Amino acid sequence: MTSANTAPTLDFVFHPASIAIVGVADESASTNSGRNFLNVLLEAGYSGRIYPVNRNGGQVQGLKIFRSLEEIPGPVDFVISAIPAPTAPRLMAECVAKGVRLVHFFTAGFSELGDESGRRLEAEVLEIARRGGVRMTGPNGMGIYCPESGLSFMSGFPKEKGPLAVMSQSGAFSAYAVREATTRGLFISKAISYGNAADLNEADFLDYFADDQATRIVAAYIEGPRAPGRLLATLKRTANAKPVVILKGGISPTGARSAASHTGSLAGSGTVWSAMIRQAGAIQVDNPEELVDVALLLKCLVGGGHSMAFVGFGGGVGVHGADLCSALGLTLPEAPAEIRAKLRTIWPSEAGSSLRNPVDIFGGSNKKVIADTLSIIADWPEADFLVVHLPLYINPASSSLLATVYVQALVDLADRLREKTIVVPGSVFSEATNKIVLDVQTSLVRAGFAVFPSVTRAINALARVIAYRQRRRR
Amino acid sequence: MTSANTAPTLDFVFHPASIAIVGVADESASTNSGRNFLNVLLEAGYSGRIYPVNRNGGQVQGLKIFRSLEEIPGPVDFVISAIPAPTAPRLMAECVAKGVRLVHFFTAGFSELGDESGRRLEAEVLEIARRGGVRMTGPNGMGIYCPESGLSFMSGFPKEKGPLAVMSQSGAFSAYAVREATTRGLFISKAISYGNAADLNEADFLDYFADDQATRIVAAYIEGPRAPGRLLATLKRTANAKPVVILKGGISPTGARSAASHTGSLAGSGTVWSAMIRQAGAIQVDNPEELVDVALLLKCLVGGGHSMAFVGFGGGVGVHGADLCSALGLTLPEAPAEIRAKLRTIWPSEAGSSLRNPVDIFGGSNKKVIADTLSIIADWPEADFLVVHLPLYINPASSSLLATVYVQALVDLADRLREKTIVVPGSVFSEATNKIVLDVQTSLVRAGFAVFPSVTRAINALARVIAYRQRRRR
Repeated sequence: MTSANTAPTLDFVFHPASIAIVGVADESASTNSGRNFLNVLLEAGYSGRIYPVNRNGGQVQGLKIFRSLEEIPGPVDFVISAIPAPTAPRLMAECVAKGVRLVHFFTAGFSELGDESGRRLEAEVLEIARRGGVRMTGPNGMGIYCPESGLSFMSGFPKEKGPLAVMSQSGAFSAYAVREATTRGLFISKAISYGNAADLNEADFLDYFADDQATRIVAAYIEGPRAPGRLLATLKRTANAKPVVILKGGISPTGARSAASHTGSLAGSGTVWSAMIRQAGAIQVDNPEELVDVALLLKCLVGGGHSMAFVGFGGGVGVHGADLCSALGLTLPEAPAEIRAKLRTIWPSEAGSSLRNPVDIFGGSNKKVIADTLSIIADWPEADFLVVHLPLYINPASSSLLATVYVQALVDLADRLREKTIVVPGSVFSEATNKIVLDVQTSLVRAGFAVFPSVTRAINALARVIAYRQRRRR
Repeated sequence: MTSANTAPTLDFVFHPASIAIVGVADESASTNSGRNFLNVLLEAGYSGRIYPVNRNGGQVQGLKIFRSLEEIPGPVDFVISAIPAPTAPRLMAECVAKGVRLVHFFTAGFSELGDESGRRLEAEVLEIARRGGVRMTGPNGMGIYCPESGLSFMSGFPKEKGPLAVMSQSGAFSAYAVREATTRGLFISKAISYGNAADLNEADFLDYFADDQATRIVAAYIEGPRAPGRLLATLKRTANAKPVVILKGGISPTGARSAASHTGSLAGSGTVWSAMIRQAGAIQVDNPEELVDVALLLKCLVGGGHSMAFVGFGGGVGVHGADLCSALGLTLPEAPAEIRAKLRTIWPSEAGSSLRNPVDIFGGSNKKVIADTLSIIADWPEADFLVVHLPLYINPASSSLLATVYVQALVDLADRLREKTIVVPGSVFSEATNKIVLDVQTSLVRAGFAVFPSVTRAINALARVIAYRQRRRR
C-alpha cells in the first residue's frame, strides 16, 4: 500500500549495518546486560558488524572490546546502551561525534523515576540527540527484534519471520507477545520494546508499520502517548491500512499511577482512549492474552460472517460454547436436514449426542469417522467458522488416542478447514497431558490452524475479530 | 452442621458395600465400557465386592463374569449399567428383585434423544425403580467418584480426598473439574456426573452436600432443573451452609436447545437463573475455568477485605493488574512510607521499578532479595491479598533461575503467605518452559498456594470470591 505519508521511514531502526553495544563486560563479570545483548545478537545471527564497547577494553566472545565509540574503525549505525543513566549524556555526545543514526537505551533511571532529576536527565540526553541528528529508542526499553535482519533483544526468539508487528512500552509484555504468538505460529516482522519513548514514540512506530510491507497486523501495548496531537490521525491511517490491536495500560487511576512509575507515562482517561481507538477503527482488547489471541485469528481466519459450527466431544462444552456465542453476538445455526442426514449415516444413533450444532461426537475415536464428520461440516456453507474442541482430560490413554485421530483428520483436511477453524485441545496443566497437548499444538500449528487453550478464549477472540470485520464493511 | 432436614441421606450413593457392573465383556472384545468401569474401580482401590455381569459369562481380570444379577451369591448395593438403553427396563426389574439400592445408568439413549420413544423409555425405567424402591443416577451420566470409598468413573483420578464436591450434568465437565482442581491441589470429596437426572437430581445432591461433613465447597454444572419446585429452597439451605459455585448451561436459546439434546433438559431463562442463584446466596460463574478457579480460591484464601498487593516482574503486568482490579472493585492501596522505606533498603535505586504497589521488581534473581521483599509485603496489614507474577517467558535460562529463586522464597514463607497469596507463573505453552512451569506449579501447590495460569484469571476469580464474602457479611 503506497501513501502520501512524508514521515521519514524508520527502516534504519530495524536494518542497521553495524551495531555497537556500550557497557559490555568481559567474561570476568558474572552477569552483565551488555554482554547479554551481545550474546543474543550472536545467537540471532545478526550479519552486520558488532562492536562491544567498555572503557576497560578486553575481549569477549573472541571479539575485541573497544574503549570508546571513537576507537571503532568503521561507521556505527546503531548503539545499544547498557550503561548507567548518569553517563547517558556523555554517551549521546559521543554518538553524535561518531555519526550514529540510532541509540537504544536499555538503560533505565529517567522520567519513570517520577522525580525532577530523572526528567531532567532524559531531557538532556534528548536535547543532545536532537541537536546532533541522532534518533533514540527507550530509555527503559528492551530494544528491537527483527528476525529478517538478525536483531533481537532476548535469547530464544525465533529466526523465522512473519506478519505481526509488536510495539510495547513494557519489556515483559513484548517478550510475552513474541513468545506466545510465535509458539502458536504467528511470527513477527518487527517487535520493539520502547519504554519511556523519549524520542521515537507510538505515533512514529504506527506510522512506520502502516507502510511496512512486511507487517500485516499490528499489536500494541501503550501506557501513555508521547505524541497525543498526532496519535488519532496516525492510528486512523494505520488502522485503515491493516488491523491494529491495542491493549491500553493505565485506564484506571491505580493503573495510571503505576504506568507513570513504569514508563513515566501520563496514561489519560480509559473512556477517552476507548472512544479514540474505536473511532480510529482499531481493535481494543482487555488483557495480554487477548492481544495475541485476536492477532492470531486476524492472521489465520479469513472471510466474513458470524455463524459458527461447534464440534465438541461431550455435550456440556457445546452448551457452554453456544451460551458464550449468544452473549457475544455469534450465531450457531441449526444444521439443516441434509447435513444432519449425512452426519446420521456415520453416527447412526449415537446416544447422548446431538448432530444439530453444536455437534456432540462423544465417543468417536476412529479417524475415518472423525474425518468424515469434519468433512461434512467443512462443506456446510452456513458455517463461516468452526470450533473443534477435544478434551484431553478424559484419561491419558484415551486422550492420546483421541489426539492422534483428531490431528490426523484435521491435518488431512487442512486445505479446506484451516482458514475457518479454531482447534481447542482442552487440557489441564499436568505431566500426564502436557506432552500430548504440546504435540497436538505443534502439529496443528504447522498445518496452519489457530490453536487456543480454551473455548472461552477462542470464542471471545473470534467475536472481537468478527465485530471488527463487520465495522470495516460498513 | 446439623439441620432439621429430613431428606434421606445419600450416603448409600457414595459408600456402597458391593457393586455389580452390567455389560462387562471379557478380554476378547476390543473396547467395552463395562470393562472400562471395572478397570477403573480396580485401579481406584475399591475395597468392596465387585461383580462383573454379562449374559455370556466368562472371566475378566481374574474375576468370574456372572450371567445375571440373580446368579450373584451375596447382596448387591450398587449396579453400574453399561448395556444398551432398550434393555434398561429389564435390568431395573432384576435390580428390584435383587434388592439393589442404586443403579447408575451410564447407558444413554433416553430423554436426551428428544423424541417420544426416549422419554417413554426413561419414564418406564423410573416407574419400575420407584415401585421397587430402587434409586437411580443418570441415565447418560459418567457416574460417581468418591476417593474415600475407592469409587471412580475415570482412570487416573487421584486417590487423595479433599473438600470439593462436584456435581455435573456433563461428563466431560465433571472430568475437567476433577482434573483441573486436583492438579491445582483442590481435592474432591465426591463427584457425580448425573446426566439426565431422571431420579436423583440437582436438589437431591445439593441437599446431601449441605450436610456432608466431608464437603466444604460445592461446584455445580446444571443444565436444567428436574426439581424446580425444590431448587431455590434447597440451594438456599446449601449455600447457607457452605459456598456453592454454579455454572449454568443453556442460558441462551441456542445453549438451551443443545442442553435439551445433551441431557434432555429444559434450561429455563438465564436471567431468572442468575436472579435465583444470587437470591440463594450462591456464586454464579461464566465458564468451566472459573468454576474451578473460584472453588480453588474459596479453599486456599482466608479472610476478608478487598485490598491487594501485586508483586510483578516488569511493570506492564502490574499496570494491567491494577486496571483489572479497578474494573472489578478491588483496590491496590499505595504502600505506606514505612513499607516503601523497608523495600528501598533492598532495592536501593533499581531503575525502572516502583515500590509503591504494584511492586515491580524487574531484575531480581537473588533468593534473599526476593524472600526479603515478600516478607516485607507479608507484614503489610493493608494487603489482604497478594498476587505474585513471575514471567517464565523471558528466556529459558533466566526463567529457570527465576523459578527456583521464587519457589524457594515462597515455600519458605508459606506459613505467612499461603492463605492470602495467588502465584501466577506466567508462561506460554512450549517445550522450553513447560517443565519449568510444571515444577513451579507442583512445588507451590504442595506448599498450599493457589497457582493460576494468568493474572487475568487470578484477579477475576479473586473479585468473585471477595464479592461473595462481602455479601455474606451483610
